[in-house]
Amino acid sequence: MTMEKFLQETIRTAGKIALKKFGKVGVKYTKSSPTDVVTEADLAVDDFIVCTIKKKYPSHGIISEENGEHQSGAEYVWIIDPIDGTRNFSKAAPLFAVMIGLARNGKMELGAVYDPSMDELVLARRGKGTFLNGQRVRGSDCKKWAESWGSLTSRFSDNGRKIIAQFMDHKPREPFWANSFGCIGINAIYLASGRRDWCVSSGSCLWDYAAVSIILKEAGYRVTNFKGKEWSFGDKELLAANKYLYPKLLKILG
Amino acid sequence: MTMEKFLQETIRTAGKIALKKFGKVGVKYTKSSPTDVVTEADLAVDDFIVCTIKKKYPSHGIISEENGEHQSGAEYVWIIDPIDGTRNFSKAAPLFAVMIGLARNGKMELGAVYDPSMDELVLARRGKGTFLNGQRVRGSDCKKWAESWGSLTSRFSDNGRKIIAQFMDHKPREPFWANSFGCIGINAIYLASGRRDWCVSSGSCLWDYAAVSIILKEAGYRVTNFKGKEWSFGDKELLAANKYLYPKLLKILG
Repeated sequence: MTMEKFLQETIRTAGKIALKKFGKVGVKYTKSSPTDVVTEADLAVDDFIVCTIKKKYPSHGIISEENGEHQSGAEYVWIIDPIDGTRNFSKAAPLFAVMIGLARNGKMELGAVYDPSMDELVLARRGKGTFLNGQRVRGSDCKKWAESWGSLTSRFSDNGRKIIAQFMDHKPREPFWANSFGCIGINAIYLASGRRDWCVSSGSCLWDYAAVSIILKEAGYRVTNFKGKEWSFGDKELLAANKYLYPKLLKILG
Repeated sequence: MTMEKFLQETIRTAGKIALKKFGKVGVKYTKSSPTDVVTEADLAVDDFIVCTIKKKYPSHGIISEENGEHQSGAEYVWIIDPIDGTRNFSKAAPLFAVMIGLARNGKMELGAVYDPSMDELVLARRGKGTFLNGQRVRGSDCKKWAESWGSLTSRFSDNGRKIIAQFMDHKPREPFWANSFGCIGINAIYLASGRRDWCVSSGSCLWDYAAVSIILKEAGYRVTNFKGKEWSFGDKELLAANKYLYPKLLKILG
């Protein structure tokens, strides 16, 4: 079985485990703040993915949101967000996703995001493109900012406010649409399939961006940090846009 | 057949008509702006609903987004948004809903919103409560602003920007979460079932608010305009929140 096939099967099963607990489990405990929540499902899905990888690829490294790091200096490292959009999940809102990426020597090799509520799986392999349920997809070809629909943050924290203010204050004050789902995985599926045109996210962790970065890159987007440098592991922010809209976005964030 | 049962059957069938065309039809024409779009599905669903009502209740009035007004001075008037979230629909994003309200002598008597992608129907009857797929639901009981998750606009138009700025500038600058879906119908389902805690919307039309207003009121929310007056037909804005969060929101918008 190829690693791609293994990833596909593992993430679909993980999504089904999450879906079984959906609407039945609430917040188990909170982490950094009352809105940074963990449910029983996060732990169960994380355990499943970690065990499955360890069994199949014992020499590989793992970095996971709920299970920490194991052999993270290995040639191959799996990066896991068992449930992205946990706050939605904990409120029985069907906007959550499982995200798994695979890096080889520090570069993303494979990425997958699975939304079990809609049964939508996006998967990308370096140099081979992005696929939605097996069909090749290419991202947005929107050319006009005023016709674009992007994704900003849901969080009106200090950091979120700073970014929103940059969009509010940028001149000229052209109209545009932006929203978010409280789940970057859903954004990734929407962008990959051209349902949205750009994405700006900040203040999240490696497991929030790893799979997403290769999925969006292989779908045709420029994927960078806010300084315009190709997104890489240390970056706690991500800007993705097609080549037409990218310069405008970089300017807004500059 | 009661009017409630008729509404239930009609909106479910309408949703199925929309879903059949989902992902297959794009923008047919635009109205006030490039983002104000109409698809073949809007017209087909509107026609179906209007014809079904006219056949069953020939003396009733109708106000519909795509078909205009008929006998809108009648005792009973049906208010229809055949596809709310048309821009999502036109991009094959499964965040859209059918919305139908029934007013009697200018007061909302029944309201229903149906999301065919998730097969979720919320229905409210004046004085009788709000139901999600037949189960009584009560909205959010969130007491703390900093733990709240609301819904703001997707549109960074002049009007949208003004509202977002009010939220950004309000002191003290406590954190909170807010997003939107480009579909107030989905917001209504989320609020009715307690997946979100409050909603602020402006610049939309009667058919965007009529069904939503009774659904949220019967789910336990205060539903007013931005001046704090109970929402009524002339209002082109809507604020909904539970009793704990409402005063804060009215202050922000004041």
